[in-house]
Amino acid sequence: MSTVDVRSIEQEALDLTRELCRKPSVSAEERALDETAELVETLLTATGFETRQLEVDGAPPAVYGELAGEGDASLLLYNHYDVQPVDPIELWESPPFEPSLRDGRLYARGAADNKAEIAVRLATIRALHEARGAAPLTIRWIIEGEEEVASPHFEAIVEQNIELLRADGCLWEGGGLALDGRPEIALGFKGNLAVKLDVQALSDDAHSSLAGVLPSAAWRLHAALASIRGADGSVRVRGFHHAVREPSERAREAVAGQSPSVEDELREFFGAEEFVDGLTGLELRKRLTFSPTCNICGIHTGYGGPGIKTVLPAHASAWMDFRLVPDQRPAEVFELIRSHLDAEGFSDVALTFLASAEPAATLPEDAFASRVIGVAERVIGKPSSIFPLAPASLPIVDSLQRHVGVPGLSAPDNPVYGGSAAHAPNEHVRVEDFGPAIEFTIALLDELGS
Amino acid sequence: MSTVDVRSIEQEALDLTRELCRKPSVSAEERALDETAELVETLLTATGFETRQLEVDGAPPAVYGELAGEGDASLLLYNHYDVQPVDPIELWESPPFEPSLRDGRLYARGAADNKAEIAVRLATIRALHEARGAAPLTIRWIIEGEEEVASPHFEAIVEQNIELLRADGCLWEGGGLALDGRPEIALGFKGNLAVKLDVQALSDDAHSSLAGVLPSAAWRLHAALASIRGADGSVRVRGFHHAVREPSERAREAVAGQSPSVEDELREFFGAEEFVDGLTGLELRKRLTFSPTCNICGIHTGYGGPGIKTVLPAHASAWMDFRLVPDQRPAEVFELIRSHLDAEGFSDVALTFLASAEPAATLPEDAFASRVIGVAERVIGKPSSIFPLAPASLPIVDSLQRHVGVPGLSAPDNPVYGGSAAHAPNEHVRVEDFGPAIEFTIALLDELGS
Repeated sequence: MSTVDVRSIEQEALDLTRELCRKPSVSAEERALDETAELVETLLTATGFETRQLEVDGAPPAVYGELAGEGDASLLLYNHYDVQPVDPIELWESPPFEPSLRDGRLYARGAADNKAEIAVRLATIRALHEARGAAPLTIRWIIEGEEEVASPHFEAIVEQNIELLRADGCLWEGGGLALDGRPEIALGFKGNLAVKLDVQALSDDAHSSLAGVLPSAAWRLHAALASIRGADGSVRVRGFHHAVREPSERAREAVAGQSPSVEDELREFFGAEEFVDGLTGLELRKRLTFSPTCNICGIHTGYGGPGIKTVLPAHASAWMDFRLVPDQRPAEVFELIRSHLDAEGFSDVALTFLASAEPAATLPEDAFASRVIGVAERVIGKPSSIFPLAPASLPIVDSLQRHVGVPGLSAPDNPVYGGSAAHAPNEHVRVEDFGPAIEFTIALLDELGS
Repeated sequence: MSTVDVRSIEQEALDLTRELCRKPSVSAEERALDETAELVETLLTATGFETRQLEVDGAPPAVYGELAGEGDASLLLYNHYDVQPVDPIELWESPPFEPSLRDGRLYARGAADNKAEIAVRLATIRALHEARGAAPLTIRWIIEGEEEVASPHFEAIVEQNIELLRADGCLWEGGGLALDGRPEIALGFKGNLAVKLDVQALSDDAHSSLAGVLPSAAWRLHAALASIRGADGSVRVRGFHHAVREPSERAREAVAGQSPSVEDELREFFGAEEFVDGLTGLELRKRLTFSPTCNICGIHTGYGGPGIKTVLPAHASAWMDFRLVPDQRPAEVFELIRSHLDAEGFSDVALTFLASAEPAATLPEDAFASRVIGVAERVIGKPSSIFPLAPASLPIVDSLQRHVGVPGLSAPDNPVYGGSAAHAPNEHVRVEDFGPAIEFTIALLDELGS
C-alpha cells in the first residue's frame, strides 16, 4: 500500500482548520450556519465524497457524505460545524473568527471544538484516497450544526436516515492526548439536564430599606438552591440517586488504569489548589466518572455594577446543570426536581427545562472499541487512558446507539490538549498535536480496512 | 403679609423639576456633576441666595447658599443634586433624562429623589421673597452631589464649614404624604453598611462537566451567604445584635400611631401578597422601624444569557447591605462580618467595604420637630404619621447632628408618594402632589419666621 506524507497532510489540515474557522458558525446565535454547511459540503465533495444535506424543520442542515472504499468494512464519522458564542469577547487576544498563528498555536473559535478534528480527518482521508485511488474502507460522515446547543434535532435526523448511518463503528468527536502523552479514549458520556430557576417575589425592585418586611427574590432563590443541594455537596432532590447504576468491574478497572495526569491538567489549566472534598488520585477520577453533578452555571439577580445600588431585587434567576450517569434520565430528573421543590414549599420557584442529553456508552469489551484502542496504543506507543464515561455530555451518542446501534468512541484523531480552551476565550490548537493525530488516523483507517 | 399664588408656584416648581432632571447627574458614574452643581448654583443665585461651592478633594462640589431673612430665626435645608443610575434602562417607557409629562405624572430619573423637592423649596422661597421683599427667616441651604453613593465626603464638608450650617433646625430631604393623606415625618434614619463578597475559586471558568471535582465559586458564595443569614431570616453574624438599643417609649408610641397605610403602600406598589414572617399591622411597622436588615442587593456569577452555557464559574460576587439601628456602628459591623467569615472557615471570601451611614435621629420631644409637625397637621388637616427611625438611611443626618448639633427631620415639602419609583425605572412625581407640598412649605416658613 502506498505511503502518504504526514507533513503535507499536516499543512493541509492546518489550512483547512483556518478555512473552517473563518466562518462564525455560532449555533446559539444562528450565525452563518447555512454558509458553513455549504463550505463543509464543498470540502467533502472535493475529497471524493458523495454528499447531501439532511434537513429537518427548525434545524440547520446536517451535511452527509459517503466515500466508498475497498472491501466491506465501514466507518461512521461524527462531527459538528457549529461553535460556541465568543463571549466574553474582551478577553480574546485576536479576533475569534480571524485564525491567528502565534508561537506554534492556531487561535480561533472552534479550532479545538471541533474544526481541527474535521480538518485532520478530511486531509488524511483525502491523502489516502489520492495515493491509493480508493479509501481503505467505506466512510460515512455526518457533520451537524447544532452540537453546541445540545443537538435538539439530531435524534429526528437519525430517525429519518438510519440506513445512511449504519457502519461497523463510529468515531465521535473529541478525544486527544493526556498531559503525559497517553491516548485518551472516551467510550461514553454522562447525560446532562440544564434547567433555569426563576423567582419573582415582587412586581418591581424595591428600595433595600424595605428588606425587613418585603420578600426577597435573591434570598428565596438562595433557599431553593439550598434545598436542592446540601452544604456537604450532596444532591437533596428525592429520588435523584435511585436510578444510578453500580459501575461494572470493567469500568472500575478502566478508571483505575487512567493516566494520573487528569489531575495535573486540572491543577495546571484552572489553578485549582484543592479539589472538592480533598479528592486526589483514583478517588478524584472515580468521582469524575461515576458521580452525577449538581452545578450552578450562573446566578443573576439585582445590581452587579460598580459601587453600590441599595436595591431589594424583585427577580432572581439561576442556571443549573446536572451531569447524569446511567440510568438517570434527564426527563425523569426534571420531574424529580419539580416535585422536590413543590414538596419543600417552593411551588413559587419556576423551573424551566433548557436542554438535555442522555447518558450513553459503548461497553469496554466491544470489539470495535478494542481495535481502535489497540491502534492508538501501537501508534502512540503508550497505554491508553480510558474513560468508560467521560464527564462531559454528547447528546448524539444515545441517538446513534439507540436508533442505528452503532458502537463508537472518541479517539485521538483530534489535535487538542487540556489547555485548548474549548468554549472559552482564546481557544486554540497546537501545531505539534497535528502530526500524532494524523498518524493515528492513517493507522486506524488502514487497520479497520484490512 | 402678602399672599402668594400657589398655582403659579406649582407651575414654576414643575418647570424647575424638568430643568434639573435634564441633567444626567449620576454620581455612581460621575456623570454631569460639575455642570449640575453650576445649574443649581445659578438657580439659587437667581432666587437671591448668596452662593458658593464647598469643595473637598475627590468630591463633586456641594452648592451652598444663604438668603438673609427678617428676624433672628434660621433654617437649614439639605438636598442633593445627584441621582441613581438608570439601569435597567430597557424598563423605562421614556428616556430617563428627557422629562416626560403623561397622565398627570412627570417621569424622569431624579424627579422623586430629590429634584422635585429642590424645585418646590426653590419656587416657594422665590415667590415669598419676591412678594415680600425678604424671606420670612434666614435660609441656609446645602445641596451636595454624592448622596446616592452614601455621601462619602459630606462629613469632611461639614467639618470645614460648621459655621455656615448652623440653624435652629434642618429640613432634610424626603418626607411626603402617606397613602391615606396623612403627613409622614421622619425624625431619623437607620444606619447602613454596604459590602461586597467575592469568591475566586479557579483561575478561569471551567467546563461544567468538571463540577464533580473542581471547586465552584457559585456554591462557595452560596455557603458564605448561608453562614451570614439563617434559613429563618436571622442574622447569624456573632455580635451583630449586641449593640441594638431598646426603643424608647416615645418611639414605640410613635410607631403605634403611624398611618396603617404603610402596609397598603407596600402591597400596592410592589405587588407583595405576603410579608416576611407573615407580618401585618403594628408588628410589620415595628419590624420596619426597630429591626436591622440583612439584604442581598445583587448576586452575579457565571452565565446569565439566553439558552444555556454549561460553565463552572471561576468567580462569584454578592452585593449586600445591612440597615442598622442604634447603636450598631457600620465600621464595627463590618469587622464582625469579617471575623464571622473567618471563624466559619470562609477566609477565602473577600469582603469589601463599599459605603456606610450611621443611624441617627432627632428625639420626638425636640422643640423644632414639634413645631414642624404642628404645621404639617394644621396645613394638611390630618394627624401626622411619625417615623422615629425611617427604614432607609441618610448619612448626612449623623454628620449634621454630631458636628453642627442641628436638629432636623424630613417633612412633607416633598411632592412624592409611595409609588414614585425612586431608584427604579420610570421614576416620577404626580402633579397633584405639588400643591400640598407648596402649601406646607409656605406655612412652615411663615411659622418658623414668626
